[in-house]
Amino acid sequence: MLKIDGIAASAGVAIAPAFKLEHPDYTVKNKNAADPAAELARLDEALATSQQELEAIKERTLQELGEKKAEIFESHLLILNDPELLTPVRDKISSENATAEYALDETSKQFISMFENMKSAYLRERAADMRDVTKRVLTHLLGLNYVNPADISEEVIVIAEDLTPSDTAQLNRKYVKGFTTNIGGRTSHSAIMARSLEIPAVVGTKDVLSQVNSGDMIIVDGLDGSVIINPSAEVIDEYKSKRDNHLRQIEEWKKLREVPTVSKDGVHVELAANIGTPNDVTGVLENGGEGVGLYRTEFLYMGRTELPSEEVQFNAYKTVLEKMEGKPVVVRTLDIGGDKELPYLDLPKEMNPFLGFRAVRLCLDRKDIFRTQLRALLRASTYGNLRIMFPMIATLDEFREAKALLLEEQEKLAAEGIAVSDSIQLGIMVEIPSTAVLADQFAKEVDFFSIGTNDLIQYTMAADRMNERVSYLYQPYNPAILRLVKMVIDAAHKEGRWAGMCGEMAGDATAIPLLLGLGLDEFSMSATSILPARSQISKLSKAEMKALAEQALEQQTAEQVVKLVRGIGQ
Amino acid sequence: MLKIDGIAASAGVAIAPAFKLEHPDYTVKNKNAADPAAELARLDEALATSQQELEAIKERTLQELGEKKAEIFESHLLILNDPELLTPVRDKISSENATAEYALDETSKQFISMFENMKSAYLRERAADMRDVTKRVLTHLLGLNYVNPADISEEVIVIAEDLTPSDTAQLNRKYVKGFTTNIGGRTSHSAIMARSLEIPAVVGTKDVLSQVNSGDMIIVDGLDGSVIINPSAEVIDEYKSKRDNHLRQIEEWKKLREVPTVSKDGVHVELAANIGTPNDVTGVLENGGEGVGLYRTEFLYMGRTELPSEEVQFNAYKTVLEKMEGKPVVVRTLDIGGDKELPYLDLPKEMNPFLGFRAVRLCLDRKDIFRTQLRALLRASTYGNLRIMFPMIATLDEFREAKALLLEEQEKLAAEGIAVSDSIQLGIMVEIPSTAVLADQFAKEVDFFSIGTNDLIQYTMAADRMNERVSYLYQPYNPAILRLVKMVIDAAHKEGRWAGMCGEMAGDATAIPLLLGLGLDEFSMSATSILPARSQISKLSKAEMKALAEQALEQQTAEQVVKLVRGIGQ
Repeated sequence: MLKIDGIAASAGVAIAPAFKLEHPDYTVKNKNAADPAAELARLDEALATSQQELEAIKERTLQELGEKKAEIFESHLLILNDPELLTPVRDKISSENATAEYALDETSKQFISMFENMKSAYLRERAADMRDVTKRVLTHLLGLNYVNPADISEEVIVIAEDLTPSDTAQLNRKYVKGFTTNIGGRTSHSAIMARSLEIPAVVGTKDVLSQVNSGDMIIVDGLDGSVIINPSAEVIDEYKSKRDNHLRQIEEWKKLREVPTVSKDGVHVELAANIGTPNDVTGVLENGGEGVGLYRTEFLYMGRTELPSEEVQFNAYKTVLEKMEGKPVVVRTLDIGGDKELPYLDLPKEMNPFLGFRAVRLCLDRKDIFRTQLRALLRASTYGNLRIMFPMIATLDEFREAKALLLEEQEKLAAEGIAVSDSIQLGIMVEIPSTAVLADQFAKEVDFFSIGTNDLIQYTMAADRMNERVSYLYQPYNPAILRLVKMVIDAAHKEGRWAGMCGEMAGDATAIPLLLGLGLDEFSMSATSILPARSQISKLSKAEMKALAEQALEQQTAEQVVKLVRGIGQ
Repeated sequence: MLKIDGIAASAGVAIAPAFKLEHPDYTVKNKNAADPAAELARLDEALATSQQELEAIKERTLQELGEKKAEIFESHLLILNDPELLTPVRDKISSENATAEYALDETSKQFISMFENMKSAYLRERAADMRDVTKRVLTHLLGLNYVNPADISEEVIVIAEDLTPSDTAQLNRKYVKGFTTNIGGRTSHSAIMARSLEIPAVVGTKDVLSQVNSGDMIIVDGLDGSVIINPSAEVIDEYKSKRDNHLRQIEEWKKLREVPTVSKDGVHVELAANIGTPNDVTGVLENGGEGVGLYRTEFLYMGRTELPSEEVQFNAYKTVLEKMEGKPVVVRTLDIGGDKELPYLDLPKEMNPFLGFRAVRLCLDRKDIFRTQLRALLRASTYGNLRIMFPMIATLDEFREAKALLLEEQEKLAAEGIAVSDSIQLGIMVEIPSTAVLADQFAKEVDFFSIGTNDLIQYTMAADRMNERVSYLYQPYNPAILRLVKMVIDAAHKEGRWAGMCGEMAGDATAIPLLLGLGLDEFSMSATSILPARSQISKLSKAEMKALAEQALEQQTAEQVVKLVRGIGQ
């Protein structure tokens, strides 16, 4: 029995045999064949086997995970049967005496490299699909002993160096009970995917892969962030009961779905969700969200070859507002730049993109982009309870300029006779230290604040949250951060505004007592965190948490704050 | 007459004919020659002419600017006579029938490319020298009509696209009365060089070069940041009197050299200087500096192939302390990383270096580097009034860890019987927002604060100060910045500590009234700013400035603050 510690990336406990996901060596060594006809036959056979596999996976995925998830395999099937790919492969076999694997590999590489050099993000994604399909066919042609993750058909825990988007898209939740990876952190792709699939995961274990053989019994403890290899029967029992307790707790939480969020001493706060697409609204409602606290509109702009039209945006905003049935929806205007790029905008490379030309800075420069979004939002406003929020506001001038553009578009719509709601709240993200420090002045002009802790922490500590060498400085519980949060909340209340938070911190069990105590009005988080947070808050007295928060503000270090909070016996 | 606005980079007014510094086209077109003997003769003639020029320039520089500045031309002469360069050039002419210019150009390019690929910064600088010498010889071989800036021997104003370090090193202050460039900002190389040479300069004019012919009469107004081309006699007279007033003012300022800095209502503050090398101390004393507020030790680590030894550092620190004769010297420990790299440390590239692994973060990881510096500092401490300051402190833990290392080295020295001063003050740079916000806690443990505004502003506004697209957000007068400055000063005073400032802002005439009013104890700036600042402060009442600062803290925007300060009639 061996226990390895990692980072708890997705809650829950999984117990199942290990499935090591290691990509084999697809290098093609035999380039020439004597008998083209035999090679063509080999190719056809490999294609046919791949076709059968893909059809089976597609069917299974359709039944178990739904149409959306099955789409990727439909794309794979289209590629597998695409004459634009297969004709040159067959030509190469016939005319150059190439082996089937060499002909496929070479031809596919040309397509992939062509796709990858395209400006279109859509076509660049096709490169990933082409790579997946080629690997599948090569597995057969090269006689590799490899089980594609999509082909998993019994309960396992997947163990890998890392999971790529292509890997995770192919995982079947029915059989994959959990996973664990050598690398990654709480915000890496694999961790986010695990939470969205609601399967337990531990990432960043450093070397779990080399410690495990396929078939070994494994426990993934996504609550505490540990992995146990070949546990004794006794330990398995212990973790089974831990798993069952967790599942029971989830059932308990589900009962809170229709209940408002109220502290032990009767104070109501709003628990809202962060979403990226209209599809996410289903999860918000299922998890009892009282609103959408952050609708990230970036996804509307990604994965396409040009800016989304006003109509495309209008429809997305309208859908979210309608589905939320009058509950508040805070839409953040475009926050692109920094680590999020749009190839078709062709933004120049920057030395420090996190301190660069992004979000509202870009929108105030590219007013054409901004006005289109504002118009779409205004037009959608009559379909629900819309709140508009500008990201990365550093000065009052920026807010005033952005607001002026909104009012201009509003007047134009009025002149065109298009209805616009007259109760749209207009707020800002507080994610830049200057804005937190000057919140009292901002509060005179905005309707609300939403504190974006991910950025606020990284700027306040001057530490890139993606940079592992300074990750020790990403300290949500640093008293300096709590003081800035307090400044923002107090400033809002003094002017009769509300203050929310939409960073990771809002859903964090250690932060919640402090935020409640500091007077935060709205907590916006991953939909799956809402019910645990509601349960936690129902057991806390706001008055007591206020006293706790006051003590926290006078601590010297983040460690002391954590100790203080843990002391209340969470 | 044409007036062009730019950025005032160095104070003063210059009036002289224009000298356009445009690099000619050194492309070698004729590669083959029929008569090698003739080519060898042409080469020797060009070398001899270049030799005469360089000797004359070296002699003139030696007499007019001193030994240090003449060194560069000594290096050029060595290259000009280096058989390692000339033998392959002559071989190429003889054996390949190459023209002299082609043989020189090709051979020199090989050396340059070899030098540039060296890890050693010293050898990489040799590449620049080699390039300068090659150009000089090519000018003769190609019969180019080009006056090298080093050859200027009458009074001119230099007009250029930009000035490289190699250009400015060759400028002779006796003849170059001023300069103006198309590009650059207040902190670009050319601007810093102009201030150090004390010649008026206007940079960032965008297109002055295309508007001027060599020989045109030019006025460079480095006070207001404008350039006038072909002024009328009347305008020339006007600017002559402006120039004379400025020179008179400089003479007035010089009278303040030995006088302490005291406000109109009798409050003393300390005006100190920022320095980079022991040589800079002369300028500090000439300008009446009351101390060194920031000794940047990075230069000790630059331009070499390995870390500087303890002995090399000890000597540098000792020299500065001795020259300052008991006046306080604040030495900042190594602040490398970010935009400052040391090739021999081989640090990994970072996505956001300004938010990365730098300064004390690196020193706490590379304790070997840090301990050597601390030992050198401790050993030097008995030679003057040493204060040690850690850069980029974001948390109290970091300060405590750095202090513990210092104490360990101190104990080791004591055990070795080496004397160490027992009155070394230990402080931190406040340049990260978290530290400003938590200054009250830091003040319980540090001896002093020095506010580093360059970084503090960029982190507080989340705007890279080197990135032109967001430069509008680099706002020293933003009320949020002033509030953070106030937090730091108040926190220091509450615990009986002192607070200084060593960013650009400390020497800024608009900021000084506010900083005086906020209670800043020490202002550290470029040596040449000290006397004007002393003069300015002597005319200000601290009590009145306190009232002004309180008003400034309640403004909404930087523009309003500037308007408020300008209102007091500076």
